[in-house]
Amino acid sequence: MSLDNVRGLVIDLDGCIYLGKKPIEGAAEAIGKIRRAGYSILFLTNNSTLTRGMYVRKLRGMGVEASEDEILTSGVIAARYIASQKPRAKVLPVAEAGFTEEARKLGIEILDESRYHEAEYVTVGLDRTLTYRKLAAAVKAINMGACFICTNLDHIYPGEEGFEPGAGAIAAAIEKASGVKPYSVGKPSEEANRQVFEALKLSGRQVAFVGDRIDTDIKSAKMAGAVGVMVMTGAASLFNIDEAECKPDYVIESIVKLPELLGVK
Amino acid sequence: MSLDNVRGLVIDLDGCIYLGKKPIEGAAEAIGKIRRAGYSILFLTNNSTLTRGMYVRKLRGMGVEASEDEILTSGVIAARYIASQKPRAKVLPVAEAGFTEEARKLGIEILDESRYHEAEYVTVGLDRTLTYRKLAAAVKAINMGACFICTNLDHIYPGEEGFEPGAGAIAAAIEKASGVKPYSVGKPSEEANRQVFEALKLSGRQVAFVGDRIDTDIKSAKMAGAVGVMVMTGAASLFNIDEAECKPDYVIESIVKLPELLGVK
Repeated sequence: MSLDNVRGLVIDLDGCIYLGKKPIEGAAEAIGKIRRAGYSILFLTNNSTLTRGMYVRKLRGMGVEASEDEILTSGVIAARYIASQKPRAKVLPVAEAGFTEEARKLGIEILDESRYHEAEYVTVGLDRTLTYRKLAAAVKAINMGACFICTNLDHIYPGEEGFEPGAGAIAAAIEKASGVKPYSVGKPSEEANRQVFEALKLSGRQVAFVGDRIDTDIKSAKMAGAVGVMVMTGAASLFNIDEAECKPDYVIESIVKLPELLGVK
Repeated sequence: MSLDNVRGLVIDLDGCIYLGKKPIEGAAEAIGKIRRAGYSILFLTNNSTLTRGMYVRKLRGMGVEASEDEILTSGVIAARYIASQKPRAKVLPVAEAGFTEEARKLGIEILDESRYHEAEYVTVGLDRTLTYRKLAAAVKAINMGACFICTNLDHIYPGEEGFEPGAGAIAAAIEKASGVKPYSVGKPSEEANRQVFEALKLSGRQVAFVGDRIDTDIKSAKMAGAVGVMVMTGAASLFNIDEAECKPDYVIESIVKLPELLGVK
């Protein structure tokens, strides 16, 4: 698929712009070049632990300038989805600030686990403050009819001492106990794509998704009829591109090569 | 299958002798009659939260006399299994006293989650002190090669305000994050049956399993070539006996009718 129509770039964060706390060398300069060439940029991450404000500060610390409007997290997607379905909804979170703070800003009421019986939605993300009591409250709320939303289904999360359970693992416990499958709004999902294109005000082939994962970044591109650009940093080595059902349109060494791919100097 | 050869009874606790904190009326008297008629008795429960000592006291409070040797829990089965595989093993527990205290008595070293990298086994049971940190430690230990043992795979646990996540739900999160399936030693399992027959010093048709669940109690009986007696108390109404693949040999209203079934006065 041609890059000629591309006017917007949806760029993954972890594995693409940085690895945990360490920036990919040259990423900041590459983003600067692309921005100066007039492309719209949206940073899209499945991580629901940080708010957009926290990401603005994190990126600035790595020399990458971005406004809050240029950042979309699975926590924000979940909050906007719920607010669009039921304004002022009551939500029991099994999630961190990237969901709870963003949700509060949209008028959503965040419940303490003791109020699980009032919950209209249960939102599950990576939650490092998880307790059995919170897990049990989520199960009981879902059994009483609350909708079960998941920010993403990633099984693991790269912790500092190895892989730790991700949102998808926590959701698996709740699914097993409640018998209800979660509705995931993270990459790849119809809802994530809907919000991406709404934010960019562009359509399918006008957008390229850039990231290190076939199952999220490239899959999202294919679902949307957009261009998929895979960077060989981060988790890329986990995927066999040749045998993947869903193949990237372009493969580049790292985000540093993106300006060249786009013909930007 | 005939009851003529039966000399030992494996009797479930929750749903059969009591419902939560409430004894089944007449259960104590029925157990007394069976005991006086000379039957060996083993109380077998998948609950791994209480120690045998705690069960002796709980049963005594309901008028049922039992020694620790007459009680077998999935926590004890897990502890004995590990001790038989690796004496003085180092175990990271995601479980309560019914496993940890029983394991310590067998010389097993119980690790704090900060020592996950030393773990040779991870044992998962119902753990109401579960935290994300403990869950993450279990996943990292298993990723480093620790054996993943589960006391039972029950998805739910009947809490006072509704169903809460059981050992099987917690295990599902760890399985999703680690990609490793647990080895379950609770009812129904080869290991549970092995320890049951070892404790009773009897063989297949000399034993009757009595309980309210087809998927655990009656399944255990069928796996062992033993007699399956279903009581219609507790969770029995969840099962359709006529359509069940694994059918009980006898169905009685409650444990109160067991002496009559056995021809005991």
